[in-house]
Amino acid sequence: MSRAPESGLALTTTVHRVPFYETDAMGIVHHSNYVRFLELARIDWMAEHHRPYTAYVEEERNFATTHVSVDYKKMVRFDETVEITVGLEWIRGASLRLAYRLDAPAGLVATAATEHALVDTDGRVRRIPKDDRAQMARLVVPLEALR
Amino acid sequence: MSRAPESGLALTTTVHRVPFYETDAMGIVHHSNYVRFLELARIDWMAEHHRPYTAYVEEERNFATTHVSVDYKKMVRFDETVEITVGLEWIRGASLRLAYRLDAPAGLVATAATEHALVDTDGRVRRIPKDDRAQMARLVVPLEALR
Amino acid sequence: MSRAPESGLALTTTVHRVPFYETDAMGIVHHSNYVRFLELARIDWMAEHHRPYTAYVEEERNFATTHVSVDYKKMVRFDETVEITVGLEWIRGASLRLAYRLDAPAGLVATAATEHALVDTDGRVRRIPKDDRAQMARLVVPLEALR
Amino acid sequence: MSRAPESGLALTTTVHRVPFYETDAMGIVHHSNYVRFLELARIDWMAEHHRPYTAYVEEERNFATTHVSVDYKKMVRFDETVEITVGLEWIRGASLRLAYRLDAPAGLVATAATEHALVDTDGRVRRIPKDDRAQMARLVVPLEALR
Repeated sequence: MSRAPESGLALTTTVHRVPFYETDAMGIVHHSNYVRFLELARIDWMAEHHRPYTAYVEEERNFATTHVSVDYKKMVRFDETVEITVGLEWIRGASLRLAYRLDAPAGLVATAATEHALVDTDGRVRRIPKDDRAQMARLVVPLEALR
Repeated sequence: MSRAPESGLALTTTVHRVPFYETDAMGIVHHSNYVRFLELARIDWMAEHHRPYTAYVEEERNFATTHVSVDYKKMVRFDETVEITVGLEWIRGASLRLAYRLDAPAGLVATAATEHALVDTDGRVRRIPKDDRAQMARLVVPLEALR
Repeated sequence: MSRAPESGLALTTTVHRVPFYETDAMGIVHHSNYVRFLELARIDWMAEHHRPYTAYVEEERNFATTHVSVDYKKMVRFDETVEITVGLEWIRGASLRLAYRLDAPAGLVATAATEHALVDTDGRVRRIPKDDRAQMARLVVPLEALR
Repeated sequence: MSRAPESGLALTTTVHRVPFYETDAMGIVHHSNYVRFLELARIDWMAEHHRPYTAYVEEERNFATTHVSVDYKKMVRFDETVEITVGLEWIRGASLRLAYRLDAPAGLVATAATEHALVDTDGRVRRIPKDDRAQMARLVVPLEALR
């Protein structure tokens, strides 16, 4: 589930309620799941601001993940709600970087970034089509928008 | 399964054969699973060089993950073998940082780092016991060991 | 996200859009994830018809899963929507059984059942409190409701 | 890691040490992961007694899972070892059924069964090649072997 952005910026906020199966024996969401939360948000961001990820898949293209970083600020528990907000930091010929912040009602949960390269079904890096790139270039937001 | 380190350095190499359930519709290991591979390796590293993670759990302590970063270099497929090598980069009063490299027979798969803070069962940060800290301080390896 | 039931029966339908990370190298949702879909639906069912699962957790009780069965009818792909409908099949002193059907726009995806026993934090089976049991007994639906 | 079978029967036992990320907030292995343990064991069984699953993948065939059932007997915790033993219950023109038992040092953890149909990359059911079928038919074990 995604919410409409409140600013004029090309941000998307995805709301995720924590299922029991994402928790671990510490009683909190296992940290590896945050990487999956980022994916939920950027798929929503693409559909809302660019074009659905399925359109790339149909053209036998994927945005392979080349970098992930997450800074964890607050633990999240079963049935709590996390809002993942994402915006585009930069885009180049074959790659792009997205920045994220994760919030819970109690405050900032994490900040994160991912980088992706467009690849074909053999995993070879391919240039992002010119029109897609130009359209996405207009979506870049200042990092402050996520602070 | 972990292998004995070949150098005199406090490194541990964990061998992981990719199960089908870790792959995604791109036909490769989903990038979120690499974060889990890191956990496999640092649990083995603790048992081999320090003390078993279960000993901390029995004392109602956990090393909460406060940072993860992964740089993905090569895709990995079903049934391929990944070797995850880990060493300690630094240790402070309540936290530590581990560095990792992931290799497959075909070459470097990824490099990564994680940071952790010792917490009690309420999630409050606690100092690492002095003796544990002193022993781990002797395990620090130069980052070049993972290059 | 759950929908209001359309019949007068105590059914709950949870809507789940398939994230990329639930797919596998066959290009479909990995079959183990269906077991997680069932959990999403029964948590919603409890909140809608009985009381939130978190209320049990606060009382240091959990419904441990003692049986799962899934019959897979149709493959589901990335970004498709699955509706998981659940109802109570029976309830006894310390255990209960739920039945499920999973539907996609293209048709029946799967049928399933789970059984659960109430346990304390040491994993010992405990009787379901009498009032809870009486209330849930009124929620039992005929299996035909899920066909 | 799989062990050689101790009987003359076509059984395979896969040894799995529970990683932290498979636990949940009950402090035990989340029940959905058992379905993944079954996959680990049957992949090893195929390699040991039939031919590697990768050989089917190369021929653009997969054994889609059409049924899973698990009966959970004992909870398993972080760092404990589970042995998953698997054998073939029956094989037909396009499908087969495997039976499993899961053991920990403390006793029986679960029993389970899975059914699979051979499919092509479009998900269409295809007959199991005659020679493969004949070879596998000789692997059928009596269910008592798993009790």
